[in-house]
Amino acid sequence: MASIFTKIIQGELPAYKVLEDELTIAILALDQVNPGHVIVIPKQEVNHWYSVPADAYTQVGLNAQKIAKAITQVTGCERVLTAAVGFEVPHYHLHLIPAWSMADLDFKKAQRLPAEEMQTLLSKLQKHL
Amino acid sequence: MASIFTKIIQGELPAYKVLEDELTIAILALDQVNPGHVIVIPKQEVNHWYSVPADAYTQVGLNAQKIAKAITQVTGCERVLTAAVGFEVPHYHLHLIPAWSMADLDFKKAQRLPAEEMQTLLSKLQKHL
Repeated sequence: MASIFTKIIQGELPAYKVLEDELTIAILALDQVNPGHVIVIPKQEVNHWYSVPADAYTQVGLNAQKIAKAITQVTGCERVLTAAVGFEVPHYHLHLIPAWSMADLDFKKAQRLPAEEMQTLLSKLQKHL
Repeated sequence: MASIFTKIIQGELPAYKVLEDELTIAILALDQVNPGHVIVIPKQEVNHWYSVPADAYTQVGLNAQKIAKAITQVTGCERVLTAAVGFEVPHYHLHLIPAWSMADLDFKKAQRLPAEEMQTLLSKLQKHL
């Protein structure tokens, strides 16, 4: 069965799309650890990040660098944490989490935000991309 | 002042070196979240991962993919988690942590292992690289 990310990529599910190119897509995480939390995803559905083809894996990383700078400008965060976990959705996705301390690396903090707030975050990020 | 990683790269401090090339080095993490925990580091000392030059950043990622496959073979882990945090050492380093559940993404679990165990882990990883 197609992953939730494949469904988003194919347009079957909506998402707040931060950036898209031939090999990758970046969206606001549905559950935000901190406001401004983005995930970057290769379009090809691959379970383990270490098995993603080099071109797509590299593109995820380079887009993540660009987006992290935008997250820093928009949120004023001290650092942007990255993590790939994958126990919930077996389609590689790289988390970019605006952070002020180590305690921000905590997926239990993740929560839905109102649609308006998501739309505002998206607009602000896109202005810096 | 040079970071602890720069001192390792310059040979001023010892480390269990998993892999080294022109742009990057990979070592067993001094404090192991789970046995087999490796960090991959660009030789150039850059604080934020998103500011590492593209060639070194990409090389960290591609070496991480190779090493993660070795970690999986050596430890039998279900997934290899990656994370970049940086609140402790402001020199980008990508953590590769063998994991069986989400609970393994917990740096508070990190602990020193006996030198013999570190040496054994290093030898096993190198056999798969």
